[in-house]
Amino acid sequence: MSQYVAPVRDMLFVMQELAGLAEVSALPGWEDAGAELAEAVLEEAGRFAGEVIAPLNVVGDREGSRLVDGKVAVPTGFAEAYHQFVEAGWGGISSPEAFGGQSLPQLLAKPVTEMWKSACLAFSLCPMLTQGALEALLHHGTPEQQNAYLAKLVSGEWTGTMNLTEPQAGSDLSAVRSRAMPEDDHYRIFGSKIFITWGEHDVTENIVHLVLARLPDAPAGVKGISLFVVPKYLLNADGTPGTRNDVQCVSLEHKLGIHGSPTAVLAFGESAGAIGYLVGEPNRGLEYMFTMMNHARLAVGLEGVAISERAYQQARDYARERVQGRALGHESAGPIIRHPDVRRMLMTMKSQAEAMRALAYVTAAYMDLAARHTDPAERARYQSRVELLTPVVKGWCTETAQEVASLGVQVHGGMGFIEETGAAQHLRDARITTIYEGTTGIQANDLLGRKTLREQGRTLLALIEEMRADTARVGALDGEAFRQLAAAQNVAIKELEGATRHLIDAASVDPQLAFAGAVPYLMLLGTVCGGWQMVRAAAAAQAHLAAGESAAFYRAKIDTALFYADHILPRAMTHAHVVRHGARATLALDESAF
Amino acid sequence: MSQYVAPVRDMLFVMQELAGLAEVSALPGWEDAGAELAEAVLEEAGRFAGEVIAPLNVVGDREGSRLVDGKVAVPTGFAEAYHQFVEAGWGGISSPEAFGGQSLPQLLAKPVTEMWKSACLAFSLCPMLTQGALEALLHHGTPEQQNAYLAKLVSGEWTGTMNLTEPQAGSDLSAVRSRAMPEDDHYRIFGSKIFITWGEHDVTENIVHLVLARLPDAPAGVKGISLFVVPKYLLNADGTPGTRNDVQCVSLEHKLGIHGSPTAVLAFGESAGAIGYLVGEPNRGLEYMFTMMNHARLAVGLEGVAISERAYQQARDYARERVQGRALGHESAGPIIRHPDVRRMLMTMKSQAEAMRALAYVTAAYMDLAARHTDPAERARYQSRVELLTPVVKGWCTETAQEVASLGVQVHGGMGFIEETGAAQHLRDARITTIYEGTTGIQANDLLGRKTLREQGRTLLALIEEMRADTARVGALDGEAFRQLAAAQNVAIKELEGATRHLIDAASVDPQLAFAGAVPYLMLLGTVCGGWQMVRAAAAAQAHLAAGESAAFYRAKIDTALFYADHILPRAMTHAHVVRHGARATLALDESAF
Repeated sequence: MSQYVAPVRDMLFVMQELAGLAEVSALPGWEDAGAELAEAVLEEAGRFAGEVIAPLNVVGDREGSRLVDGKVAVPTGFAEAYHQFVEAGWGGISSPEAFGGQSLPQLLAKPVTEMWKSACLAFSLCPMLTQGALEALLHHGTPEQQNAYLAKLVSGEWTGTMNLTEPQAGSDLSAVRSRAMPEDDHYRIFGSKIFITWGEHDVTENIVHLVLARLPDAPAGVKGISLFVVPKYLLNADGTPGTRNDVQCVSLEHKLGIHGSPTAVLAFGESAGAIGYLVGEPNRGLEYMFTMMNHARLAVGLEGVAISERAYQQARDYARERVQGRALGHESAGPIIRHPDVRRMLMTMKSQAEAMRALAYVTAAYMDLAARHTDPAERARYQSRVELLTPVVKGWCTETAQEVASLGVQVHGGMGFIEETGAAQHLRDARITTIYEGTTGIQANDLLGRKTLREQGRTLLALIEEMRADTARVGALDGEAFRQLAAAQNVAIKELEGATRHLIDAASVDPQLAFAGAVPYLMLLGTVCGGWQMVRAAAAAQAHLAAGESAAFYRAKIDTALFYADHILPRAMTHAHVVRHGARATLALDESAF
Repeated sequence: MSQYVAPVRDMLFVMQELAGLAEVSALPGWEDAGAELAEAVLEEAGRFAGEVIAPLNVVGDREGSRLVDGKVAVPTGFAEAYHQFVEAGWGGISSPEAFGGQSLPQLLAKPVTEMWKSACLAFSLCPMLTQGALEALLHHGTPEQQNAYLAKLVSGEWTGTMNLTEPQAGSDLSAVRSRAMPEDDHYRIFGSKIFITWGEHDVTENIVHLVLARLPDAPAGVKGISLFVVPKYLLNADGTPGTRNDVQCVSLEHKLGIHGSPTAVLAFGESAGAIGYLVGEPNRGLEYMFTMMNHARLAVGLEGVAISERAYQQARDYARERVQGRALGHESAGPIIRHPDVRRMLMTMKSQAEAMRALAYVTAAYMDLAARHTDPAERARYQSRVELLTPVVKGWCTETAQEVASLGVQVHGGMGFIEETGAAQHLRDARITTIYEGTTGIQANDLLGRKTLREQGRTLLALIEEMRADTARVGALDGEAFRQLAAAQNVAIKELEGATRHLIDAASVDPQLAFAGAVPYLMLLGTVCGGWQMVRAAAAAQAHLAAGESAAFYRAKIDTALFYADHILPRAMTHAHVVRHGARATLALDESAF
């Protein structure tokens, strides 16, 4: 089992050279959030992730969370580690200072999130869901609700959950049936919710459930769903947890991965009805959910980065240690990292992990710029970028993580199939990331429909122009490597632009033809954006090399970018081909002929 | 949990239209093995697979094989099903009649094997390993050894194992350390073997272990390994099992998948030494293993086909039943198969499963032609084809199965991640297939080194010419679909030829440059061969349509071929690009920079 070592230097490189940490720390209120603070935060978080959280990963997988006599037993060490996490203040690093948080920019918070997720994905979901509940109340709660819950959620003393899914309502939340009956100043909630992450446990003294349900007079469909806050323990007058609310954990799911995380079926209102309080206005619950979706989806996209990083570290460490066979050009048996195909697998993992991280952090920085840029026009421009790139980070990073985690198993050979090795857990854990918080298909429909077609590709075409300008700058640098990188990137950008224009045209003829290509289009955009970041990384590395700095690190950045250009970027051709030519074949077969 | 229904009509279509069943049944001794027998065998095998074996799949996964007090307990129902399997005579359908088999051609036997593997991969490994032991003795055993063991192995009354791997000797068998000390007419075997599939159980009254070990005076490396037969129970004078031999199951592995199959660590010679008998000549054990490798590797390639088929059936059934959301162009909520991206996923699964099956069965037919063609030159030509295509079927089908099984999970959404759904098991089970019987990297090195470079691509370039001729015939058919299919296939063939010539040139400069592209090259060849078969399938379907037959089935074959051409075949461009341009980037990074 390999150790997790947070890739602090790689992270700082992306933050400073690609995501514009200097620009973010020039925004109002973030003057202290510069390189020095970033380094300090990442070093400390890396230590905590490696020493406290990472050892939970295997334990959580083996023991799992279990439901015993109606109580959820979390795996050994989870509760203790969570309490340390709260004490150290990690829960609230990007939350408002008004409620006890540190208000750090997303560009600092997201790398820290990546570390938790690399260290133990199942554990990381608890603070992540808490963050979701926190934001729901922060943006839409009454002052009383905020006073009652926010400080506890920011500190992590209480955890939060998001109760959306029901058996008949998964991707399609319009089918939600849970009911909320008005009573005095509150509502009585009745219904069954499934797939509730960290839905029940005794790690903290209370759990704050955010629940979608329908009012008696609500219109059908998506416009009749309201949002409620339903604490596990109702609050006493002094704000402390009091009476147990009518919400019960009926069962925990037996899952492929993330065993440590209790995925609960929750029954609301088995007796008198769970007491809940309306959040915001009636019938706007789904809209409120969507306002929080960028954060949650970006966080799941980071899970793709995080598992890829962890799987890569484990495979690399094994490949350095495992002696097997004499590689070409070597005199005797040696570590398998010498075999060309093992190198190919490791580089495929490494280059994509780096490209994904870069795009995710750049998107995080856009969030910060959208939040605090002094020019409202720039705020709007960055917000459009965030809206556009969020489904890409979510969909592309998690799909790519499937490939990376699977290669991680492959590098181990037969040992990869043995659970004790640990490589297989990454593959199992990764498998949920393309599904929850909106499947890849949902992300792709969002990207194509709301983010592209609705505005005739305006934001995207502007992004393409920025990619072209960046690529031209890199191509003008001295050296064959840069000419090659720019040439490959320009081919890919051209494919992307062609596919975009094709989809805009196709949608005007028949939307089905466009949407049949939505997922390949998402993968195309992710691949090309990844290439864009790798080209920028190579140029940044070259500047350091030219200044005579630490050659090995920066030389590797250029070599990794070249690998991405030669091995990964050509996939853009295939994706674009499928987008342009594949729709009719997708739709051709009669349903009965499958 | 979906039922498994053997795709008998699809199988017969491939056997008759693409693999040349008529040609095979014209070979000496196989005159009865025509369409009528094929249909009867497949119907009966399909029934047995669906009714007797398929129900074991979930049970085997949940219970697993367990080691209790030194004995292996196989999952509930496995032993009974195995005894039925033996009674029905399925074990020996392609084994020689002289030892009680039916001597059916591979073209009939392999579809039956596919069914066992779709129904329950873990179960199917027991007869598969028995087949390996059987062939070792059939080709290299003394008459006495053959008389002692073959009839029992053919019937399946005894099972067989292959003992190759040791902790330090996986892909590199030259590192085998197990020792064989001569004593009277036998040897005493000492050593530890790992990853021994069905290495211990009480389902049958004896187990016949085939074991690689070194004689005291053996040369180092691959040329000093001998093959021994080591029965679990030594045989009495009358041939019945007698004294327990000195071989013990020390532990069973805790694996990602195929839980039902006991993967044993076997200790030979913990006391006086396990009694073994030399098979063939000393020091030629590895060579003997290689003579059996085509069968075993083709069988594992079929596992890729089989799991893809099973995963597809399950995803398709779910997509037809699960109602969620209103699809574009529909008035109300309906089954998710109506969503364009669900169709895209199902077609990606279906088209590749069909392409893989076709190439595997065509290769099986080549085996039959290589065995019994009346013209020795033709026998040699087909044998070269078998040698060339075996690593492709093994590598490409199992790698593709990872994608197909993963899509199977994705189609299920959140339910796919829940173990009870069954989709996740296919993904877990599939994961071993790219590893055992030689990893994809090993297959690719075999394809590139032994099968291509060693003869300057002679067999492969001839195959390319055959593909071109077939494609030209299809392109000349009446209809836009055939023009499109041929055009796409010709582009892919050109990429394949270019990549082949590039590798031959690169190897003459620096073999490392060529071998860095070995796996992408294998995937390129598999993808293009798959397209070749799909083009042929479309043409065969068209002939039936023109004759006015069952339109839906044959129309679907053409639509599926078009999907393959538009969605899968373009990957050839990417693979070829990587082969031609990717080697330097693969080899560039310093080992310390990973």
